[in-house]
Amino acid sequence: MTGRRRQIQLTPLVEAQRLFFDAVEQLGFFAAQEEALPVREALGRVTSRPHRAARPVPHYRSAAMDGIAVCADRTRAASPSSPTTLRAPQDFAWVNTGDPISEPFDAVMMIEQVTEVEADVVQISQPVTPGKHVRSVGEDFHNEEIIAPAHYRITPEAIAALLNGAVYSVWVKRRPRAIYIPTGSELAPPEQTLQPGQIAETNSSIVAGYLTCWGCQVDVGSCLPNDQDRLKAILEEASAQFDLVLVGGGTSMGRDDLTPMLVADVGRVIVHGVAYHPGHPLLLGCVHNTPVIGLPGYPVAVWISLRLFLKPMLERYWGLPLEPAVYVEGRLAEPIKSVGGAVEFVRVRLEPDGDGWRVFKLPGGASRLSSLLRAHGLLEIPADVESLPAGTPVQVLLLRPPA
Amino acid sequence: MTGRRRQIQLTPLVEAQRLFFDAVEQLGFFAAQEEALPVREALGRVTSRPHRAARPVPHYRSAAMDGIAVCADRTRAASPSSPTTLRAPQDFAWVNTGDPISEPFDAVMMIEQVTEVEADVVQISQPVTPGKHVRSVGEDFHNEEIIAPAHYRITPEAIAALLNGAVYSVWVKRRPRAIYIPTGSELAPPEQTLQPGQIAETNSSIVAGYLTCWGCQVDVGSCLPNDQDRLKAILEEASAQFDLVLVGGGTSMGRDDLTPMLVADVGRVIVHGVAYHPGHPLLLGCVHNTPVIGLPGYPVAVWISLRLFLKPMLERYWGLPLEPAVYVEGRLAEPIKSVGGAVEFVRVRLEPDGDGWRVFKLPGGASRLSSLLRAHGLLEIPADVESLPAGTPVQVLLLRPPA
Repeated sequence: MTGRRRQIQLTPLVEAQRLFFDAVEQLGFFAAQEEALPVREALGRVTSRPHRAARPVPHYRSAAMDGIAVCADRTRAASPSSPTTLRAPQDFAWVNTGDPISEPFDAVMMIEQVTEVEADVVQISQPVTPGKHVRSVGEDFHNEEIIAPAHYRITPEAIAALLNGAVYSVWVKRRPRAIYIPTGSELAPPEQTLQPGQIAETNSSIVAGYLTCWGCQVDVGSCLPNDQDRLKAILEEASAQFDLVLVGGGTSMGRDDLTPMLVADVGRVIVHGVAYHPGHPLLLGCVHNTPVIGLPGYPVAVWISLRLFLKPMLERYWGLPLEPAVYVEGRLAEPIKSVGGAVEFVRVRLEPDGDGWRVFKLPGGASRLSSLLRAHGLLEIPADVESLPAGTPVQVLLLRPPA
Repeated sequence: MTGRRRQIQLTPLVEAQRLFFDAVEQLGFFAAQEEALPVREALGRVTSRPHRAARPVPHYRSAAMDGIAVCADRTRAASPSSPTTLRAPQDFAWVNTGDPISEPFDAVMMIEQVTEVEADVVQISQPVTPGKHVRSVGEDFHNEEIIAPAHYRITPEAIAALLNGAVYSVWVKRRPRAIYIPTGSELAPPEQTLQPGQIAETNSSIVAGYLTCWGCQVDVGSCLPNDQDRLKAILEEASAQFDLVLVGGGTSMGRDDLTPMLVADVGRVIVHGVAYHPGHPLLLGCVHNTPVIGLPGYPVAVWISLRLFLKPMLERYWGLPLEPAVYVEGRLAEPIKSVGGAVEFVRVRLEPDGDGWRVFKLPGGASRLSSLLRAHGLLEIPADVESLPAGTPVQVLLLRPPA
């Protein structure tokens, strides 16, 4: 049992994030690789290059309104007291929105302003200016004009614009390939009948779910028992095949917590132990040029760790925020004690209270998924705060609508 | 050309929304149908029923910390000046987080508070209370306790919790099946070389993209020429097969605008013409019990119409907001003229300006996709406002980060 009492030296959260992101940058993780995709399959992806129109949009001069195409010059004298009579085909042509405007016509008079006298004869009682209600060639995008710049998230309307501009294939940042490797002899598939001491391996659903939402392609490895040699071999193999390796469990200081030692052995430990709660026994390292993250075992700690390290890392990769951070103002319904010495992330429930919200801490520690499922928001308590009295005004990061 | 000058009577926007959503409710659209899915495939879906734990979580009494399992009673006298000596196996057992706590032990003393004297002999210098650092059976979810209520969006952590509770299949609201039918003899696939008068059919990318994002399964029909009989047959067939039918084009008052007449013929027109811009020649109706929406032809009008009618309709179906509405405060950099008599939705660009934003109207009307692609936000100008002077403080709905 020797060595059991080693404690992890905790690095302050902001310092750990800085050290890790700096290291990840040096590993080249943020130098996005790209791939070409058919534009119709690129919804939600992020461009790696600017894309320019290969034809003007619109590609021909067209009517922007239903009405008649005219020569503006011929309408100059029209007034209510002295309407101008126009005859087709020499003076005007009926046009619907989108119809080509051919020479010599240079303007469209709206249907509402046209009085039909007889077939092919109309009267107008006001003039139009040249170009009025005419879409000129390239008025939306000139030929060669940038439709979507680099680092642009492809929306449905961007697909429509690119197709209009005859851009059929787009260069987008490649999705990082990530693998999650659950470790621990106690883990078992949740689908089986569990014996005492067997823990359902479900952290992979949390890791794979969020990393997928944040744009990664995610593999989940099979559960690894606490076997030093196998874990080491798999760590080396995974770091050669993937852009990002996550190992579940084994990061603390217990009997079977092998991950930090193995990462140090085949790669480099950047930070082990970060001052936030729940989640502190986090391991940040690399093997070859691949970031390797050792996640804690408790699901809430996994969830917080993903938000604190993987989300900002992937936001930097994509060059975009992955979700808007919406904060609401509330007041603590009850006093809250914090761990102190570490940033604490408290899952809270919100109840309407006039213009704002009453904020209730949800019961339970890092092990309780219920505290996440029932949370409306997340309250961050700084490391130097050990308690907050009832009534304290707080900003709560909204996780789901509190209705 | 007789009848060309009919103008559409515009229904006020809020009134049109109320009439349509009331009709849609009566058609039974909001009475969600459900389907069963394997829980591992249900990420992002919305439950149609509550789901209860089929086993307690955790399912056995376990250590919540690394340390020793003890009888709390045996530690009562321990103090720094008079430590208590414990011997394994009768007085204590080494445990790692997650290990079962077997009788008679009822508490865990953290590893940091244990001094190892020799193999199987330790000293402790403080007492523990019964239950300390022990996870009791069902402390996260009791057997039969609700893990995910009805109308709950399934997050990654919800999947983990459900699997832990031996819930492998979930009842979720079925995705509405929608079809978009582009109409107009002028439409052509964007992949081909376009002749003057041919318009690339790309509105389907906007419609299918957003409806997919908002949870629908979307089919896109082939482009229909302006053929009354075919369009009528397809309208009847589609409304029998789909939950929602969208028809592109043909809703205005031009030569080939057949949609309102056909919908009136085989079903019912609820509203034709709504006072918002861009987008006003919208058609809201139903055929059999299926909502049928005739969308305008211009892409920005399509985009706005989807946000004003389809998004709130699907939010009501799902019982959840589909995206958080984030508003920023800014001031108009230049005066803006509005159409008046109709709510206008202005696409704006934002530039940082001290604490707030300078707000610029993007050039171009309903036809210009560039005004959408370059927009950071959307500014709503009420129907009774015809102009706003420069410097007017405004709230802008954020569409993408203005960085």
